[in-house]
Amino acid sequence: MALEMFRKEETLAMRKKLIGQSCRLFYSDDPVKIVRARGQYLYDENGKRYLDCISNVQHVGHCHPSITQAATTQMELLNANSRFLHDNIVQYADRLAATLPDKLRVFYFVNSGAYHGHLTSLIDISPYKFQKLTGQKEWVHVAPIPDTYRGVFREDHPNPAQAYADTVKDVIDKVHQKGRKVSAFFAESLPSVGGQILLPKGYSTKVAEYVRSAGGVFVADEVQTGFGRVGSHFWAFQLQGDDFSPDIVTMGKPMGNGHPLACVATTAEIAGAFTANGVEYFNTFGGNPVSCAIGLAVLDVIEKEDLRGNSSRVGGHLLDRLTQLQTKHPIIGDVRGVGLFVGLDMVTDKEQRTPATDAAAQVVRRLKEECICVSTDGPWENIVKFKPPMCFSMEDADLVADRIHHILTVILEEDKGRNAEVFNTANLTDPYHN
Amino acid sequence: MALEMFRKEETLAMRKKLIGQSCRLFYSDDPVKIVRARGQYLYDENGKRYLDCISNVQHVGHCHPSITQAATTQMELLNANSRFLHDNIVQYADRLAATLPDKLRVFYFVNSGAYHGHLTSLIDISPYKFQKLTGQKEWVHVAPIPDTYRGVFREDHPNPAQAYADTVKDVIDKVHQKGRKVSAFFAESLPSVGGQILLPKGYSTKVAEYVRSAGGVFVADEVQTGFGRVGSHFWAFQLQGDDFSPDIVTMGKPMGNGHPLACVATTAEIAGAFTANGVEYFNTFGGNPVSCAIGLAVLDVIEKEDLRGNSSRVGGHLLDRLTQLQTKHPIIGDVRGVGLFVGLDMVTDKEQRTPATDAAAQVVRRLKEECICVSTDGPWENIVKFKPPMCFSMEDADLVADRIHHILTVILEEDKGRNAEVFNTANLTDPYHN
Repeated sequence: MALEMFRKEETLAMRKKLIGQSCRLFYSDDPVKIVRARGQYLYDENGKRYLDCISNVQHVGHCHPSITQAATTQMELLNANSRFLHDNIVQYADRLAATLPDKLRVFYFVNSGAYHGHLTSLIDISPYKFQKLTGQKEWVHVAPIPDTYRGVFREDHPNPAQAYADTVKDVIDKVHQKGRKVSAFFAESLPSVGGQILLPKGYSTKVAEYVRSAGGVFVADEVQTGFGRVGSHFWAFQLQGDDFSPDIVTMGKPMGNGHPLACVATTAEIAGAFTANGVEYFNTFGGNPVSCAIGLAVLDVIEKEDLRGNSSRVGGHLLDRLTQLQTKHPIIGDVRGVGLFVGLDMVTDKEQRTPATDAAAQVVRRLKEECICVSTDGPWENIVKFKPPMCFSMEDADLVADRIHHILTVILEEDKGRNAEVFNTANLTDPYHN
Repeated sequence: MALEMFRKEETLAMRKKLIGQSCRLFYSDDPVKIVRARGQYLYDENGKRYLDCISNVQHVGHCHPSITQAATTQMELLNANSRFLHDNIVQYADRLAATLPDKLRVFYFVNSGAYHGHLTSLIDISPYKFQKLTGQKEWVHVAPIPDTYRGVFREDHPNPAQAYADTVKDVIDKVHQKGRKVSAFFAESLPSVGGQILLPKGYSTKVAEYVRSAGGVFVADEVQTGFGRVGSHFWAFQLQGDDFSPDIVTMGKPMGNGHPLACVATTAEIAGAFTANGVEYFNTFGGNPVSCAIGLAVLDVIEKEDLRGNSSRVGGHLLDRLTQLQTKHPIIGDVRGVGLFVGLDMVTDKEQRTPATDAAAQVVRRLKEECICVSTDGPWENIVKFKPPMCFSMEDADLVADRIHHILTVILEEDKGRNAEVFNTANLTDPYHN
């Protein structure tokens, strides 16, 4: 198979014509054409290699041979739907169950994460989407994001977990005052679009207590953060402690290493309520033998290659290196993360913590020139995020930190230069010097 | 790889425990465990072979080597997301565009059909779901299904297409009287759950005219019927004539031969309106290089193996054979279909066209004993449906027709026997015979 069928300009022209423009390209001003990948590396049509800090979906590494092998072997045998009995789906559910609290024992396999924003029912519960579109529905209530860097309660608060949990309690009280009830609390276990936030320890336990008292359930969205990304635990919600268990867990992106695979895990009680409505739930592709074979292979590779251990070690090293940079570059307001889920929060003013959106975009652009792919996130797109494939190495982490140091130094120099120039220009046009 | 990891009873026990019970099994009283498949054949754990008349998703045949090869080759190279430029997505869109009317030129790739019933937004527009669940929303309006066998206007009507289209006009008028507007008209091009219905020719053209006059768009759901299933055309909506084009076409199930792949095609104008809301549409897996490589391979196999020709020939033959049976078995009320999309409508009363739900279930059970898998559909589940992989052969069609003839003869004999018995019993308990 030829790596390229069309010249890059032709591909781009066809894409502009044939693919909806809402589907954006990375580096839209000068997009990258990627024709092959391996591990944590992407290669363009000229063989140029990029270090990939973006592709959390390709969890165990791009084109991992064990995953391809598992897919091929099962594709040669059978890929029927889940209305026929098959071992893969039950074996996979059993393996997933072993990673979860005991009460989460019932699985629904699908082929896409509960992506926020594809359907009105999900747009309605996604602030970053509904704010731009249809507005907030009367049955949707938004709790403050428990951000201890830029939120209402910060690192100097004696108990931010309790304080933020109490804001959820306030929301529940207001809901009740309106004569409404509470159905569910949805939160990413580490809010990503919200700004690479680490929930203060104890927050979820407390929130779950409040939500359950009000008759609701706690839904942990592990679509971005599950499958060992945080290193120390298999699921990010487990960072909250052994006493915490959600009632529903959604999982997706890394689950199939790029193959469309996702899942909802819940309790027998909640599953029973879903069954009791009497309507069949059928998913054309969900839980098919190929998807489950791939899912099983991903679990195997995570274990065999100790990718959780690697995530802890390399992620910890990256965090250290970036934290060191923070002392040198005032534009780095905060460095936070766990495992290979790391964010660099850029600010124009260290005191005010004002988001440095432009500088973050500039870092992304300059890193691209250095053949390193990163992206930004957060409400102001000022957080440079790192969610690379889990085979990311110490050397990769060092390279990234070195290049960021270099880029920030250059930006600083340029800014000094620009300020000097502005000063000179001001002097030249000073009417008193005519 | 061993074909079986657990004994069948163990698989079943694990399934009951670990998988949500809303996810039903075929033949739930005595489910079949399928461990491998090829072409139109399924094999259970003991090597018993079943003829598959159900799996429309495995469109070009189970485990087609060309599809496996395409998937493997691309998985070895790259499976990144569609934010990077890649040739497969544009080449695939270009190939699909060639099958569609000129104005449908913009594509959105996803990984699941717009499945009716997974999310409240889709339940709301699916009568067979909302009737069982939340009820009909005030913004949803249901037009009568244009069923010329059991509907309001039947085969004896001089112009059922116009008459049914006028019912849509009536709905639009009522919507306007309420001060509401019309957004979109959704219809499967051959309503399947609705009862394997063939839309009367000219219906869609007329409906589109009415809907567009009211400011709405016509959405053709080709998820079950596209990719040449009807034989004579690539899309079932094309049966309506060359002058008809929908504004939006949804496609899914057969598209990836079992791989999760789906798509929405629309006009530049509608895509432009979607872009204009300013919100990015990103789909984690949609349009990735592996999905598109598989999609391209499916198109190639359809062409190379002339599967549309096969569908016309074999489907036509199956329709003929079943129509002959209709003259012998009064329980067959109607036989209808096109290509390899065929339904056998079973009735207890040929005049009243009363759905024979139990008899249809019995046919499904008995065919299973003969190692033939079929299922039922329609609002009363009385329609035995045939949507086999497109490599279905003349011999397969003959086998199915022969076995149905045999089963219906047996049912008839048994019914006679039972009636006789009832009659005898009545005699025995007749008080006048004491």
